[in-house]
Amino acid sequence: MVKVGVAGYGVIGQRLADGVALQKDMELVGIADLAPTLSIKALKEKGMPYDLYLVEGADKSKFDAAKIPVKGTFADLIGKVDIMLDSSPGGVGAKNKALYEKAGVKAIFQGGEKNSVADVFFHGYANYEKGLGANYLKLTSCNTTGLIRSVDCLDRAYGVDRVAITIIRRVADPGDYHRGLTNALQMDKAPSHQAVDLMTIMPHVEATGILVHTPVTHGHIITVVAHGKGGKKITAGMALDAFKSHDRIRVVSIDDGFLGNASFFRYARDLGNPRGDMYEIGLWSDSIVESGDNIMYAINIPQESVTIPESLDGIRAALKMQNDSKAATAETNKYLGLGKWK
Amino acid sequence: MVKVGVAGYGVIGQRLADGVALQKDMELVGIADLAPTLSIKALKEKGMPYDLYLVEGADKSKFDAAKIPVKGTFADLIGKVDIMLDSSPGGVGAKNKALYEKAGVKAIFQGGEKNSVADVFFHGYANYEKGLGANYLKLTSCNTTGLIRSVDCLDRAYGVDRVAITIIRRVADPGDYHRGLTNALQMDKAPSHQAVDLMTIMPHVEATGILVHTPVTHGHIITVVAHGKGGKKITAGMALDAFKSHDRIRVVSIDDGFLGNASFFRYARDLGNPRGDMYEIGLWSDSIVESGDNIMYAINIPQESVTIPESLDGIRAALKMQNDSKAATAETNKYLGLGKWK
Amino acid sequence: MVKVGVAGYGVIGQRLADGVALQKDMELVGIADLAPTLSIKALKEKGMPYDLYLVEGADKSKFDAAKIPVKGTFADLIGKVDIMLDSSPGGVGAKNKALYEKAGVKAIFQGGEKNSVADVFFHGYANYEKGLGANYLKLTSCNTTGLIRSVDCLDRAYGVDRVAITIIRRVADPGDYHRGLTNALQMDKAPSHQAVDLMTIMPHVEATGILVHTPVTHGHIITVVAHGKGGKKITAGMALDAFKSHDRIRVVSIDDGFLGNASFFRYARDLGNPRGDMYEIGLWSDSIVESGDNIMYAINIPQESVTIPESLDGIRAALKMQNDSKAATAETNKYLGLGKWK
Amino acid sequence: MVKVGVAGYGVIGQRLADGVALQKDMELVGIADLAPTLSIKALKEKGMPYDLYLVEGADKSKFDAAKIPVKGTFADLIGKVDIMLDSSPGGVGAKNKALYEKAGVKAIFQGGEKNSVADVFFHGYANYEKGLGANYLKLTSCNTTGLIRSVDCLDRAYGVDRVAITIIRRVADPGDYHRGLTNALQMDKAPSHQAVDLMTIMPHVEATGILVHTPVTHGHIITVVAHGKGGKKITAGMALDAFKSHDRIRVVSIDDGFLGNASFFRYARDLGNPRGDMYEIGLWSDSIVESGDNIMYAINIPQESVTIPESLDGIRAALKMQNDSKAATAETNKYLGLGKWK
Repeated sequence: MVKVGVAGYGVIGQRLADGVALQKDMELVGIADLAPTLSIKALKEKGMPYDLYLVEGADKSKFDAAKIPVKGTFADLIGKVDIMLDSSPGGVGAKNKALYEKAGVKAIFQGGEKNSVADVFFHGYANYEKGLGANYLKLTSCNTTGLIRSVDCLDRAYGVDRVAITIIRRVADPGDYHRGLTNALQMDKAPSHQAVDLMTIMPHVEATGILVHTPVTHGHIITVVAHGKGGKKITAGMALDAFKSHDRIRVVSIDDGFLGNASFFRYARDLGNPRGDMYEIGLWSDSIVESGDNIMYAINIPQESVTIPESLDGIRAALKMQNDSKAATAETNKYLGLGKWK
Repeated sequence: MVKVGVAGYGVIGQRLADGVALQKDMELVGIADLAPTLSIKALKEKGMPYDLYLVEGADKSKFDAAKIPVKGTFADLIGKVDIMLDSSPGGVGAKNKALYEKAGVKAIFQGGEKNSVADVFFHGYANYEKGLGANYLKLTSCNTTGLIRSVDCLDRAYGVDRVAITIIRRVADPGDYHRGLTNALQMDKAPSHQAVDLMTIMPHVEATGILVHTPVTHGHIITVVAHGKGGKKITAGMALDAFKSHDRIRVVSIDDGFLGNASFFRYARDLGNPRGDMYEIGLWSDSIVESGDNIMYAINIPQESVTIPESLDGIRAALKMQNDSKAATAETNKYLGLGKWK
Repeated sequence: MVKVGVAGYGVIGQRLADGVALQKDMELVGIADLAPTLSIKALKEKGMPYDLYLVEGADKSKFDAAKIPVKGTFADLIGKVDIMLDSSPGGVGAKNKALYEKAGVKAIFQGGEKNSVADVFFHGYANYEKGLGANYLKLTSCNTTGLIRSVDCLDRAYGVDRVAITIIRRVADPGDYHRGLTNALQMDKAPSHQAVDLMTIMPHVEATGILVHTPVTHGHIITVVAHGKGGKKITAGMALDAFKSHDRIRVVSIDDGFLGNASFFRYARDLGNPRGDMYEIGLWSDSIVESGDNIMYAINIPQESVTIPESLDGIRAALKMQNDSKAATAETNKYLGLGKWK
Repeated sequence: MVKVGVAGYGVIGQRLADGVALQKDMELVGIADLAPTLSIKALKEKGMPYDLYLVEGADKSKFDAAKIPVKGTFADLIGKVDIMLDSSPGGVGAKNKALYEKAGVKAIFQGGEKNSVADVFFHGYANYEKGLGANYLKLTSCNTTGLIRSVDCLDRAYGVDRVAITIIRRVADPGDYHRGLTNALQMDKAPSHQAVDLMTIMPHVEATGILVHTPVTHGHIITVVAHGKGGKKITAGMALDAFKSHDRIRVVSIDDGFLGNASFFRYARDLGNPRGDMYEIGLWSDSIVESGDNIMYAINIPQESVTIPESLDGIRAALKMQNDSKAATAETNKYLGLGKWK
């Protein structure tokens, strides 16, 4: 039983903890945070299903005042685990790394950290093998994770050598009050970092793209123009077949009622998924069109939860629990219940 | 064991069904709907925890095509229950009533129907006794339900004879694509129907108000200016004490992280509440201010779920399961887990 | 002096009227509408700079009650003009056409009508010559008009044979209360009609694309992946040079403060442009990236005003005021003050 | 001819400059700013209708690079004027005050500064006389300015001794990219500063209120519950009469097409008002309702332009151009064209 800890119990950290708890070959030892945030208060109101450890700088008296039980220090937690999932705010993970190194504990960092924090910039499908036995992995960000799923899927099936993407990026999660955008679209300078990151993970693909921020909360939408390797045409039918066979891609249609990003959120809530989360990216079958040698399609990225499966894959890679991507992702999918709906 | 059916498995219907399923003295016999909507597809993907019956006009072949098992007709469902919770689209409930009458089955309609559909316009706290043994009840709408909770709470404690309200109404639920409002506030003619409805339920209170629609999805906010009965002053401290003692009112503060309507949604998701729902209205302690003989405060209304408890109270009233509001609401609260968090 | 009338004084009609009034070789005879809308009330408050005629079905007593002077009937207006600009609500233009035919008057319809209403589906730059002397033209819609400007610009300079577009479409104009979308992105089935329309206007270009609706009001953003004719590479520098030379394209950068669609609206207001309108599309120099043989870039479409210049070009074509696109667009641009800012 | 300068050419500064330029008894000497912002670039594109002076810290080479002519230094401007309108970013005005004092020049600060920067916290209607001859005035903020207009209007007509307000505050102006809020309502701690400020300006009125931020851009909406002095009832008809007689209040109705805050913006654009600005607050006749001794109503605040008239009144007060509020506001209104529309 692999022992796992989570540092930073925010939007991603809560979901990492829940994801680990579902893996029958992993044990969630506990989570660490700095302050009695709403997330920590919710943990307390639920009866402390996970043990809480305090990172350096935490004011324990505030936790005492809120009657939130504390199990120990961050060092205590690190001392009990095989690997840490670090979803601390951007930049903090790099500082935590020194503690992990000192304790000889592996770690997986989330997308907010610089690539240099890790030995390997990781994606469970596209470069699992690079992560095997590595000490420090960094996960791709939410958009990149979902984007790569779809491009890797086509690439494995038919070969892809070039993509041009347009990211319509939601700017805030539900409940986010520290960032926002009101009634406006905002441009980023091209190329978007997601395109650049894709090339790091999939060096045989040329990628570029434009990112536009949009004032919504329930998922990003990305359009992808993908070029068949060497000009080999990928038809709409071929693309659809490949996407349908992928356990982390949910193929839907407008006619079925999936009208946009919010439909996925509504559907996940109706499914009874905790927090209304969905691990799969959505892919609209009626968005797939051909353009010369290119295939074009649109995907939906559930930003809060999409990186959880690949993070769990990362644990399997770093700790050599499985030896290849196929076995590792299948194991993760099994415990998360992915693919069952087909 | 009281047998209950739900007609209309949409935003409210799903939550009514879930709410009934939690009551240990009630049995959910099944739900009825017209088409294989996303909500029905989610029910199927979950393995049909509730039996599905089809209302007249439903095309069974569409359900067959989607491999959704159908248990019987609407008449079959009505024949098996003591009471129907009708959350059909506005106007359909009035038509369904003829079927209920024919079968001698009681029913509770939701806010979308006209008051004339029912014998009693009902609120679990404010006029439970009027609903005792009634055949047809109509629930107050979401805003009115939450508003009355707070006004009734003050009224019982100290007496209230007048309120002036401002409703900042969210225009769509997450996933709603058939209505919307973009970057604009929209006025309704005053007085708002919620103020008028409050007077129907609480005839000893004079009420008026203004409603403004706002382009958000996660909860309404209402400000209330309430006048102590006969000019008797209700201080901020007195109001706070009363609100804190109510099991369907969650008193929070900005300092604790409840920055707005979206914080409640975020918190309910973090709590692991199904669908991220919350049954309680929120009440900001730091919104309470005095104005002459009036007390002013702001509440948050979780529009999708707030009417569920009072609907369950309605079952208890119509079927005379409990004889007074205090006992009935306590029973509902116990099974929904309300008040436990204090 | 060419005599022009405008039917339908809404968002587009007002701007057509203003545009015609600026052309020194055209006379605006008057405008026609059905009801004393806010736009008509504003016309009255401004002192009736344009004469008002009433279409069939209008209730004159309502205009009298609002003290809005009426000059005559729609037939009166048609009898005085050489050409009508028809910006009636979708479908009404087709009915009006019978009146125009009867009176032997030419007309230009806006994008809301079906293509079959007109002899020629028209764009001032891309197919001006087709419109020469035609009786009935239909303008491209706002997105298509702006998109074609940019594609035609590259095509004339270097050749383009294929485009794949992503349209991030604003769903409402400021003040639009009859449509809306709240906190959600909505998908259209692919290919978008704008891509299809582009192929009608520019038959030598293969086009496809995906449209996503977004809840903002101040301009659409389109990303374009354009393929050099026969695979001839168009570099970023070449594209920038071509765009900069176009009088209806405003090349801007994020560094200069054009952060998104709302920046254009803000800037046009600061310029003192009536209604805060801009006739030019915006093009971000820092969005231009290369992808194999393709060039990718992003444009901003000011949806309320972008079709005005091409509509005026249409008058010049239908009435043979100029014989080619270059002369016609130059004349329109001169009177609208386009290109002066460089 | 009174000589006026404007410091800070942003959202408010541009409008102050335009407002001064319309006053036939005032001369706009010039404006001062720090950097070649979009607003300054627009000024240049318009041909420099106002002379530009640079404040300390400005990098003149950036203006030279953009070919923006510079007339002189901030000290030069101050040396030429009788009074400065200071709309610098919050806090900068307080620093500028030292320069004004040194030069013996009066100044009027905008709402972003602390009250202590000025001798008098000023409103053109409610306390004009206090500003007579004062050296340093501070204007009320946009919400407070509009709110006081309506309360002062009722107070002068009938007497008011108490108000309880709910402010539904837009969070960003069109084009604002440095602040925002996405799909959420945000609470402020009560009482709102606008209620407190009202009491400073109108010390005989007790005021409190709650402010809720809302993700829209085109105007705030405030509901007001006002108590007749000593309990004397103000009927809806009495309130309507008073509001209709006020030249800076535009009484409208939903039936006439004013559906919400965005309707005012749309209407002002259609009127051809520069920037689509409106100086008047809007007041919905169909929002006026009675509540015991109280009158309740809703107003719309055009946040970018509403303080301009009162700022101009401030010049008349500080320089003793008129001796009372009635004469001063009439003069301002005449040059701004206010009241003409009735």
